[in-house]
Parts: sequence; C-alpha cells; structure tokens
Amino acid sequence: MAQPASLAEVWRGPFLESHHVGHAVVCDGSGQIVAAWGDADSVVLPRSSSKMIQALPLLMSGAADARGLTSQHLALACASHQGAPVHVKAVNAWLADLGLGDDAFCCGPQESRDDALRIEMIRAHDTPCRVHNNCSGKHAGFLTLTQHLGAGPDYVDPHHPVQRACLEAFEAVTDMTSPGFGIDGCSAPNFATTMRGMARAMAWFATAHHRSDTMSVAAARLTEAMHTHPHLVAGEGRACTRLMRVAKEPVALKTGAEGYFIAILPTRGLGVAVKAADGATRAAECAIAALLVRLDVLDADHPEVAEFLTPTIRNWGGLATGQIKPAAALLA
Amino acid sequence: MAQPASLAEVWRGPFLESHHVGHAVVCDGSGQIVAAWGDADSVVLPRSSSKMIQALPLLMSGAADARGLTSQHLALACASHQGAPVHVKAVNAWLADLGLGDDAFCCGPQESRDDALRIEMIRAHDTPCRVHNNCSGKHAGFLTLTQHLGAGPDYVDPHHPVQRACLEAFEAVTDMTSPGFGIDGCSAPNFATTMRGMARAMAWFATAHHRSDTMSVAAARLTEAMHTHPHLVAGEGRACTRLMRVAKEPVALKTGAEGYFIAILPTRGLGVAVKAADGATRAAECAIAALLVRLDVLDADHPEVAEFLTPTIRNWGGLATGQIKPAAALLA
Repeated sequence: MAQPASLAEVWRGPFLESHHVGHAVVCDGSGQIVAAWGDADSVVLPRSSSKMIQALPLLMSGAADARGLTSQHLALACASHQGAPVHVKAVNAWLADLGLGDDAFCCGPQESRDDALRIEMIRAHDTPCRVHNNCSGKHAGFLTLTQHLGAGPDYVDPHHPVQRACLEAFEAVTDMTSPGFGIDGCSAPNFATTMRGMARAMAWFATAHHRSDTMSVAAARLTEAMHTHPHLVAGEGRACTRLMRVAKEPVALKTGAEGYFIAILPTRGLGVAVKAADGATRAAECAIAALLVRLDVLDADHPEVAEFLTPTIRNWGGLATGQIKPAAALLA
Repeated sequence: MAQPASLAEVWRGPFLESHHVGHAVVCDGSGQIVAAWGDADSVVLPRSSSKMIQALPLLMSGAADARGLTSQHLALACASHQGAPVHVKAVNAWLADLGLGDDAFCCGPQESRDDALRIEMIRAHDTPCRVHNNCSGKHAGFLTLTQHLGAGPDYVDPHHPVQRACLEAFEAVTDMTSPGFGIDGCSAPNFATTMRGMARAMAWFATAHHRSDTMSVAAARLTEAMHTHPHLVAGEGRACTRLMRVAKEPVALKTGAEGYFIAILPTRGLGVAVKAADGATRAAECAIAALLVRLDVLDADHPEVAEFLTPTIRNWGGLATGQIKPAAALLA
C-alpha cells in the first residue's frame, strides 16, 4: 500500500507549522488512472462528494420527470448547501410540492451556515429545522423517489428501495463492489469505494454526455445542473460555488466531509478525487484547486482561485500570520 | 528525521475514515526523553501551550506581587479561556485595576465560545470585544508587566521588553536557542522550539516546586494556579478543564492551536508535549488523553476521560456514526 502523499502545507511566519497528506487520483473515461498521488487503492467514504451518484436513481426511475423537477431541483439534490434563504426556500417549496413537511426528512436539524439567517433566527428565537441541514436537497430527492416507488418513509434504511437503488448506481459508476457503508451526517448510508473507484466514477460522469444510455443521460443532466447553478450546490463564499464560477470551462465540483473533494471535467472527460487523510477541509480545498490549476481548468492568478490555492491565514486582529500552500508535486 | 507517528484514528462504521499522525515526547526533569513517538527534533510552534512560559516574566519581575495578583489571575494569564461570563468578568476587573480599557489589548476581538453568552450578545446586538478573545488573560498579564516596566503600549512587538523577557524565559526552560517565531492568533510572537524542547520545558515546570530559584518559584506558582482553577484555564466542557478535574493527581494541562497539547505532571516530575502534524485539535486531545492514561494519571474507564480518549462521533440527528480512537502505540 502506497503511503499518503503531501497535499498541503500550513506556514506561519518562516515555519511549516502543519502538514496535510492524503490521496488524489485523476481518471479518464475508460477508468484508466491519468495521474495519482498517495494510494489509489485506499478505501474511502466519499461522503457528500458522492451526492450526484445518490441522485442518479431519482432521474433513472423517471421520478424526477414525473414530478417536473427542474435543473435547480437537481442541483439541490447534489448539494451540500449552507442553509441560506435561497436554499431553504427552494427545498421547502419542493417539500410542499410533495405534500410533505419538515418531519418527513430523516436528516437531523442543523444550524444554518448563512451568517445573516443564523443571526436572524437566533434573534427570533427560532430553532434550526431539518430543511436547514446541508443535505436537505438530497433528502428531498430521496423523498421524491420514495413517493414515486410507493415505498415506506424510512428512506435512509440501507434495505429501503431508495438506498438499494443508490448502491446499485454507486457500484455501476465506481465499477466495483462496494465494501460496505458508514452512516453519514444526515443518517443516510454512505457507500465506500476506493480512491480510484471514485475518480473513475467522476470520469464516468464527465463523459456521460457522449453516451445515450439511461444512466449516462441522468449523469449528464446532474453534472449540467451542478455547473449551471453553483450557488445552489454550496452557497456564497463556499469553495464549490466560487471555484465553479471562475473555472475556464464548465465543471462540477463537490466537497465532502472529512477532507473529500471531487471534480467532474466534461470538456476533457476527466474525473478527479481528493481525500485529505486527516479529514481536513482546508487541505482538500487547497489540493483540488492545485489539481485544477495543473489541468489548466483554473487560473492560479485569479484572486478567487488564490483564496483556495494559497489562502492567507489571518488572526483575530486581521493580521496575516501565515499561508496555506499546495504540495509542489500537485502542481508540477 | 523520523516520520510522524500514528496518534489517532477516526472510524465511521467499519471503516478507518481518517487518520492523524504527529509527534509526542515525554521528558523528565533532567531533560532526558522518557518516551517519544514521531520526531522529537521536529521544530514546532507550541502556540497557546506555551502560555505558562509567557507568564514567567510577570512573576519573575515582581509585577504580579506588586499588583497583588491572585492565583486566579495567574490561571487566567495561562488560559485559552472560552470567553464565558466568569472569564470576561475577571479579566475586565483586572483591566480596571490597571486603569485600562478594552482598547489597551493588542489582541483582536473574538466571539465568545460560551453558547449562552454568544447567543445573549447576538440578541442584544453586542459585538465581541477584545476581552472575549481567548488570550485576554495572557494579555492582561502582558499589560501588567508593561506597566511595571514603564514600557510602551505595543507589548506584542517582538522588540518590546515584555516579549524580550518572554523569549529569554522561553529559551531558558526549553534549554535551547529559539529558531524564531510566528505571529499568534492574538498578535503576540509565538516562539519556536523542538518537540523535545517543549517537553523538556514542561518537565522543568513539573519539577519547579523542588527548586528555589526565582524562575522555578514562578513556574511552580503558575502550575499550581492552573490545576487549582481548571475552569479559568479553558472553561466548562473543554478538554483542559475536564481532564484536569478528573486527573488522579494535580496536573496542569494546556491546549494550543494547530493540534498542540501539553501536560505538566508535578507529582512524577514529567512533562509531555503533543503535536498533531496536521493541526487537528481532536487528534491532540485524543493523544494527550491516551498518554495520560498510559502514565496512569487518567483512568481510561472514567466517562469524562472516555469522551476524549475514545469520543463517539454523532451526526445531526444524534446517531452514533463513528468513533475516534488513540493509536495503539500510545497506550502500549
């Protein structure tokens, strides 16, 4: 087993204060590894970076079209949104279309990450709802499919038809049997694969627009929904949203908990998967920015890109005290 | 250079999802390494784990006694407090004794980490002050020494007499020339040393009560102040406070940013330093708990200890989804 490779360095003054290692794989549409750092065979939980895979059954089943879901709905189904008003309003409207309320969601309540809304809710003595959970769009998709299938309400049970369909899609696009699952932050199963499996899946999404089978058509629609609505996939200020907006070509980017990040690059038919071994988001964001600069999808000199590629660390007084830098090998 | 060693594992269901590596050193009072994991010679910024060293000149100069500082003041000078009412009130009273206001602090304002106060302040449309900064007790100590020395107001300037005294104390207790400094979260210089240097310094504190020189007497008073007032050093719910309270003997524990943690063990004359190479607090807390269990300072079966040694990971719905576990080698 290959050791994790250097992903990002955290400097404070003249000192390398902290250091992140992990794994990164770039695959092409045939599943071949184009480039890799660390261990491409390491088993990982891709967490929310797999949401576009979990959304495939929603389209393949016909549920999305039967319900008249728009590309906004599809972007939300793939989102880890920050519970800003735009997200909460859209997911609540979707829920109302289904004739359901907040308690139909199987995810727990989460405080909004939108500063203004969070403060407004505290002042109004409002408590967070399940719709504020960053996964509520995914869950609205699960509920839509559940209704379409006439299945029971416990749609996060691994034996529920929705999750069985997710596993089937997951194994198809990763091109391997999943070794199992962990329970995610939103209580849904999160299926395991390898770094290569995940990069292969993202390359499969990136090449889906060239194919006409049902699953590929669904993948191409989800990818397009993501890069068409960057603000729905995450939110203002967030890495996914900001980097999708400044990319030189249409790309779908998606973070996941514990230092995961993926990129779907339809123009060149490549998929990228990154995992910071220690689970740090700051490392995954820096590494995905570096790999996208390497691939010329992002411009290193763009100020928005620099904020993730080489972010300045500031202290409580606003002083610049350090900087995060990508490992040289990711850019070379 | 030795590679970082395994410190803590993050499990989700049957999968090792993330993994933290780093360095840990246990020293005795003579500066000899009793046990080490990773690289004892790695250069580190001990961050807030060095606050008791930064407080030495406050006592050695006579400033503390001239001002009539109590052991509560000394505990606050060594604290990364969470800005709870108890901390804010005490530091504001100290500041008033000095005839100074919030703007005398050189640290930036920081939102209180005390949930009730934070919410109360949001509802009252109050903005955080510098006194809420977790380092405000240290800065009150710096201001006390500044007044005593009749020095200028920019006490975080590395050339200021306060910081020159801190560096002198730092090099004395680490028993080495510091290779430089970084600027800390509170804008003060944070001097660099090695893992061994920091463990040696903590062992020097742990044996200080056996010696009668001015610096040792100061170190013994600071150590006693920390373990006498655990709630002032951090706050309710925090690792330093909770683990000091349940230790089988008087110990001083102190976290630092970017995955640092130290222990001063006066009963056995040992010092412990831990650095998670990736900067993760969860890893440093788990590793220090494991080392203190290994040394029989903490009881692994105590529920308070278990919350840091083997914490359960829960999701937004309250479900147990995983667990953090210390590396086996730390306990063996």
